[in-house]
Amino acid sequence: MDDLRVNGARLWDALMELAKIGATPKGGVKRLALTELDRQGRDLVVGWGRAAGLSIKIDKIGNVFMRREGTDPTLPPVVTGSHIDTQPTGGKFDGNYGVLAGLEVIRTLNDHGIRTRAPLEVAFWTNEEGSRFVPVMMGSGVFCGAFSLETAYAARDVDGKTVEQELKAIGYCGEAEPGQHPIGAYFETHIEQGPVLEDADKVIGVVPAVLGLSWYDCVVSGMEAHAGPTPMHLRKDALQVATRIMQEVVAIGNKYPPYGRGTVGFVQVFPNSRNVIPGEVKFSVDLRNVNDELLNKMHEEILAYVARTAEETGLAIRIERVSYYPPCPFHPDCVEAVRKATAKLCYSTMDVVSGAGHDAIYTARVAPSGMIFVPCKDGISHNEIEDAQPEHLTAGCNVLLHAMLERAGIAN
Amino acid sequence: MDDLRVNGARLWDALMELAKIGATPKGGVKRLALTELDRQGRDLVVGWGRAAGLSIKIDKIGNVFMRREGTDPTLPPVVTGSHIDTQPTGGKFDGNYGVLAGLEVIRTLNDHGIRTRAPLEVAFWTNEEGSRFVPVMMGSGVFCGAFSLETAYAARDVDGKTVEQELKAIGYCGEAEPGQHPIGAYFETHIEQGPVLEDADKVIGVVPAVLGLSWYDCVVSGMEAHAGPTPMHLRKDALQVATRIMQEVVAIGNKYPPYGRGTVGFVQVFPNSRNVIPGEVKFSVDLRNVNDELLNKMHEEILAYVARTAEETGLAIRIERVSYYPPCPFHPDCVEAVRKATAKLCYSTMDVVSGAGHDAIYTARVAPSGMIFVPCKDGISHNEIEDAQPEHLTAGCNVLLHAMLERAGIAN
Repeated sequence: MDDLRVNGARLWDALMELAKIGATPKGGVKRLALTELDRQGRDLVVGWGRAAGLSIKIDKIGNVFMRREGTDPTLPPVVTGSHIDTQPTGGKFDGNYGVLAGLEVIRTLNDHGIRTRAPLEVAFWTNEEGSRFVPVMMGSGVFCGAFSLETAYAARDVDGKTVEQELKAIGYCGEAEPGQHPIGAYFETHIEQGPVLEDADKVIGVVPAVLGLSWYDCVVSGMEAHAGPTPMHLRKDALQVATRIMQEVVAIGNKYPPYGRGTVGFVQVFPNSRNVIPGEVKFSVDLRNVNDELLNKMHEEILAYVARTAEETGLAIRIERVSYYPPCPFHPDCVEAVRKATAKLCYSTMDVVSGAGHDAIYTARVAPSGMIFVPCKDGISHNEIEDAQPEHLTAGCNVLLHAMLERAGIAN
Repeated sequence: MDDLRVNGARLWDALMELAKIGATPKGGVKRLALTELDRQGRDLVVGWGRAAGLSIKIDKIGNVFMRREGTDPTLPPVVTGSHIDTQPTGGKFDGNYGVLAGLEVIRTLNDHGIRTRAPLEVAFWTNEEGSRFVPVMMGSGVFCGAFSLETAYAARDVDGKTVEQELKAIGYCGEAEPGQHPIGAYFETHIEQGPVLEDADKVIGVVPAVLGLSWYDCVVSGMEAHAGPTPMHLRKDALQVATRIMQEVVAIGNKYPPYGRGTVGFVQVFPNSRNVIPGEVKFSVDLRNVNDELLNKMHEEILAYVARTAEETGLAIRIERVSYYPPCPFHPDCVEAVRKATAKLCYSTMDVVSGAGHDAIYTARVAPSGMIFVPCKDGISHNEIEDAQPEHLTAGCNVLLHAMLERAGIAN
């Protein structure tokens, strides 16, 4: 059984076939959640599932579970999956890979007539991207109870259409109550969406955790004045003070390696005119780390720095936390199953935390969960030029196969 | 003659009367160049000039010279003036004060039957503000040959109307050739448009020079990436590098007191999204100082810092000078005349350089020129809340009176 391998060419063909639905001229995919194109993508994948002998279950938020029975009906299923909706300028692999890797595992087991003790399922979750409807990770979020079905149903796109309307319109508003579906273990394969594996030249990322994040809005208020007539010592230059804090955000990220992150991504300067000293600067702060203790330290440090800077400069500075997602460690058993499968298959490997959100963050609330990362070109995703190498995708799928077999058990 | 004083109440009344034309609900004035409101303002001032016995001459760019003859027809006139066009959200004093202070000098001399040897003139220059048509300081710029009449005529507002059309439409396209008008000396009274006099509690600013300025566009190019999955050591954070340069700009301003200025007023971050490491940051750099030597040092320092930063960080950084106005020292005789008049009148005084542009910068190219500053509230101008105290305006006008008399000579 140890030399069992998936069919990498078949996996690649499936990815390329699915990528035709919503294909963009630049080689990417635009298949927004609950659109007609999403329906076509769902129908294609469900068709492949049926052809592979899987039974289909759809819940009220449109999550789809495609099931292969095991020999022991008392065991909960080992589930794998991801999503097939994309960003407006998305790529071929983000999400889609996780779903089709699951399908390839099933096809491989079928090819070899292998049965498992626990059932296996391939799931795809509704609206992971959140591009058309918020909140993001909607299907898995409702499934694990992060927010209610009603909240999700009421979400509207820019044209005012609701999730409920659109789910019904594409025929994917199922009967099953979300969450009323036991999961024995959940694995999700995904492109890394970061540069770490590629930089280190490793094929498989074992994912111990998803970074927690703290988001802040910061506003520095000074005094708008003409750049010429106002001497330096009489200025209240909001940008000069804001840039000090922006540098500290990065310094705090650097202070807590290897998983600390400090980013200022958004800046707004008022009045934003060449010869006017800025009177007000708004900017975002994004701090991340792998556990609560470190993230809290970073939180305390930025607040203290802002307070000190306000005192030193005499300018008013407001900082407010606007979002907080706690760090999400994956289940040791699932992490270990991935690690063990990778070792067995002799792939080069390293631990890589996930810095982005995935459905696995939500499944981790209700079931042991883990993730498998493979490299993507230049760490780029959410972009039409997103790319990945077939041999890496195959490797990740082989790891998934063996991790799932490990958890599900092979029937005699 | 030393105890001759202007009528401050009359000056104030004239200012308030002119401010009614284009008055805004917030107490400011919107009287854009070459609009119907500008015509009304011009007509009012010209009417006052005629009533004071002045002859009117209008040149082809709409500059207006209102003349009181002297006793010696061989002498060129001593001219004072400024502008009566305003910013879209302008105040009552910027420019208008300089013109009406000139008129008040004439009225005062008329009251006392005083004649001067050289002729006296009150001028107002077309489109100083540049809000509707660029370039700014258009009338005085054409007058001194900084750019051609054709260039000015061809300038269009947002609706596509040209300066030439609009000058003719309001009846202020005169016959005189701009610049064919000798000036013996030029004085301009103006609110400071900065906080220095108020901060030092002085009434009269003697203006030795206008600061030169160097404007730059700077672009830092990094690599856009997700804030979560990208570890600190693999980032090319354009904003982190840009903020270092922004801080250096201010440091360079601080390094050359009292007249050094370093300002970043404009910042644009791409893609400017909370959870994306900025891939590109564009920003402006504004450096000023009082003489070429110091301004050149500042220029060399920012270029060197940018080059060093590019080398240290490996990011591409472009900096390009987009504008340069050399420092403009005023004529020693005019500066001295203002200083002497201020001393005679016993007003508290200090030297204040001008950081903003004024028509006097252009007149200085063709005639001995000088300026007189009075405080404005909180240093604010180009704003509807621009304000100044009547006694300060009166003081500035008295200084103008005595400086003009000194230069023009009193007839026996």
